[in-house]
Amino acid sequence: MFQVNDNFQKLPGSYLFSTIAKKVSAYQQENPDKNLIRLGIGDVTQPLAPAIIKALHAAVDEMGAAETFHGYAPDLGYEFLRSAIAKNDYESRGCDISADEIFVSDGAKCDSSNIQELFSADCKIAVCDPVYPVYVDSNVMAGRTGVYDAKTEMWSNVIYMPCTMENGFVPEFPKETPDVIYLCLPNNPTGTTITKSQLQEWVDYANKNGAIIIYDAAYEAYISEDDVAHSIYECEGAKTCAIEIRSFSKNAGFTGVRLGFTVVPKDLKRQDVSLHGMWARRHGTKFNGAPYIIQRAGEAVYSEEGKAQLKEQVAYYMKNASVIKSGLQEAGYTVFGGVNAPYIWLKTPDQMNSWEFFDYLLANANVVGTPGSGFGPSGEGYFRLTAFGSYENTVAALERIKKM
Amino acid sequence: MFQVNDNFQKLPGSYLFSTIAKKVSAYQQENPDKNLIRLGIGDVTQPLAPAIIKALHAAVDEMGAAETFHGYAPDLGYEFLRSAIAKNDYESRGCDISADEIFVSDGAKCDSSNIQELFSADCKIAVCDPVYPVYVDSNVMAGRTGVYDAKTEMWSNVIYMPCTMENGFVPEFPKETPDVIYLCLPNNPTGTTITKSQLQEWVDYANKNGAIIIYDAAYEAYISEDDVAHSIYECEGAKTCAIEIRSFSKNAGFTGVRLGFTVVPKDLKRQDVSLHGMWARRHGTKFNGAPYIIQRAGEAVYSEEGKAQLKEQVAYYMKNASVIKSGLQEAGYTVFGGVNAPYIWLKTPDQMNSWEFFDYLLANANVVGTPGSGFGPSGEGYFRLTAFGSYENTVAALERIKKM
Repeated sequence: MFQVNDNFQKLPGSYLFSTIAKKVSAYQQENPDKNLIRLGIGDVTQPLAPAIIKALHAAVDEMGAAETFHGYAPDLGYEFLRSAIAKNDYESRGCDISADEIFVSDGAKCDSSNIQELFSADCKIAVCDPVYPVYVDSNVMAGRTGVYDAKTEMWSNVIYMPCTMENGFVPEFPKETPDVIYLCLPNNPTGTTITKSQLQEWVDYANKNGAIIIYDAAYEAYISEDDVAHSIYECEGAKTCAIEIRSFSKNAGFTGVRLGFTVVPKDLKRQDVSLHGMWARRHGTKFNGAPYIIQRAGEAVYSEEGKAQLKEQVAYYMKNASVIKSGLQEAGYTVFGGVNAPYIWLKTPDQMNSWEFFDYLLANANVVGTPGSGFGPSGEGYFRLTAFGSYENTVAALERIKKM
Repeated sequence: MFQVNDNFQKLPGSYLFSTIAKKVSAYQQENPDKNLIRLGIGDVTQPLAPAIIKALHAAVDEMGAAETFHGYAPDLGYEFLRSAIAKNDYESRGCDISADEIFVSDGAKCDSSNIQELFSADCKIAVCDPVYPVYVDSNVMAGRTGVYDAKTEMWSNVIYMPCTMENGFVPEFPKETPDVIYLCLPNNPTGTTITKSQLQEWVDYANKNGAIIIYDAAYEAYISEDDVAHSIYECEGAKTCAIEIRSFSKNAGFTGVRLGFTVVPKDLKRQDVSLHGMWARRHGTKFNGAPYIIQRAGEAVYSEEGKAQLKEQVAYYMKNASVIKSGLQEAGYTVFGGVNAPYIWLKTPDQMNSWEFFDYLLANANVVGTPGSGFGPSGEGYFRLTAFGSYENTVAALERIKKM
């Protein structure tokens, strides 16, 4: 008799963004005349850059002729894309990562949820709190997280590392040593990050304790300060303890295009087993490559034309971040992030909890944001706004908030 | 201290097609003057149909303008594609499957390896033997298959259902009742299939025993005989026991485009848990949708223009199948498949084993095929040729084989 994987039933309630969508839809139905501005979800709004559109059209044409048609892609990604990544994202920053340590995928969400398949069943994970929900949820489904306490909103077998204004949003080494440490830097949702020397301490800690760091660098393109690492491999010793996950979603607007990659260094081994070999086997068995035309679009991200156009796109969003940050400060809010990331994290005023502020902002400014508590218990009392809207909408939203 | 998932280490040797590639490359190096014809891998060679190219270009243009740009797709797929699938693949065949029971993905390989995440850890699986290796390998990685015996090439905790010329390639109900039954029909690698009434017996068996059928219908477009079901939902009662996986790879040449879907009926429940709900949660947590432009290409598969062009493409490959089948028969081989599938399965002559015949064919006809033993122990003594080459190459290959 077939039995289901009952770990799925342990997952509490619905996904954060579904709850928000329902609330917004109910409000809109009751107030059809109100013009809502959405600064909630981390989805981009600017169209793909011309260099990328050009590459996509060219690749589509190739697929239409027998001589240039491409069938199954290499499991690990086309050489042209892996080389462009190695050169532009790693070599240029002095990181010794070769093309064959890079695994191209259909996006960082898949990679960051699939990577736990390499861990033994009893590995204990540590996450920053608040955090992108996928790290914990994918481990819940695999049965690694213990029991959920609805009151504290915490799992019994997960190590939480609070990141709050009290510690400057810098995670501290936990009391109990974890087997796996998830770090997303610059951070989603807080928009904050840590310095390269602080990151070096985490690398040293992992190497000393035999832990593995899953380093999510999805927001790397938004870093503006010099003492922040763009890749964990800028730190000495990272190749023996860290896997890095990257996305094209935020630096190139690929949220609907789907492309990402994961770096698993060949030096990363445990119990004499190569994690590079394991991930290659996982890719070969369970994945069939990202689409050829999409990989050509990824290559265009690294062309001179593409780089120039995307620099402008990132600047556009960071101008929004600056509008949000300074607007909120003018309105008297305590604000974090927005300097090395497209997210602004604010302390809710007047002791409101995150969801109370969500309702307050929706009703009084008709602006949709994301309650901090949706990212973990230490997010309670905070709220996230994103810089991914249009400039006009962002300015209008802040005018409304200032008048509130 | 981090420990790896040691189930990965249980996987024997390298992937079948890597071994073939190495052997072929070695032969080519020693014989640089020989012109090899590859009828081994199930990869298509015809370019994408004009209707699909047109849809891709149009969707790329949409992505280049702010007003028509598409960010994150709905996790479960765009409504326009799900509706087209429901109407054309199910309604048209009298199957009561609604659009919201269809989950769009980036390909059937991913779905058929990820689907096991819904099973409890102690579920026992049954597979046809020989079979597409992904079903077993994905369960090995999840720790469900027991111990591998290198001599018999079998896993201690997998139920094998031999499909050989002795039973007409029709799997028999196993002695031990499985929890999950994988059926790929028309079958890869044998190219054979079963009648709709034989499939109905499997549906009845699963419902009676509380088992679940994972039905891989990737080759459905190649069915030419009337008494063969295109979908398992043509059988009565299938909605309470079966999940169906479909691909655009073989009917529309999408091996390098990446699109597929899985049907999980809402009636499919176990222990009061909806498998539809579980798969939706899995998609929402671990997947971010197939690319917008690729889903538009999928929609074009169902346009009148697309359907006409793809009917010709399938006919092209089936003409190759017929060339292979009749050519082999003329040369005195015992041959199966090739009528409802693009694969031809032949009995190796003169008591040769599968790999001996591989070497013999490579050396004497310079034709590359796939050893049947690579698909499971009951594939020993058989050999697979595919119809996915060009017509000219296929004819040339058979001329060489006839002269052998």
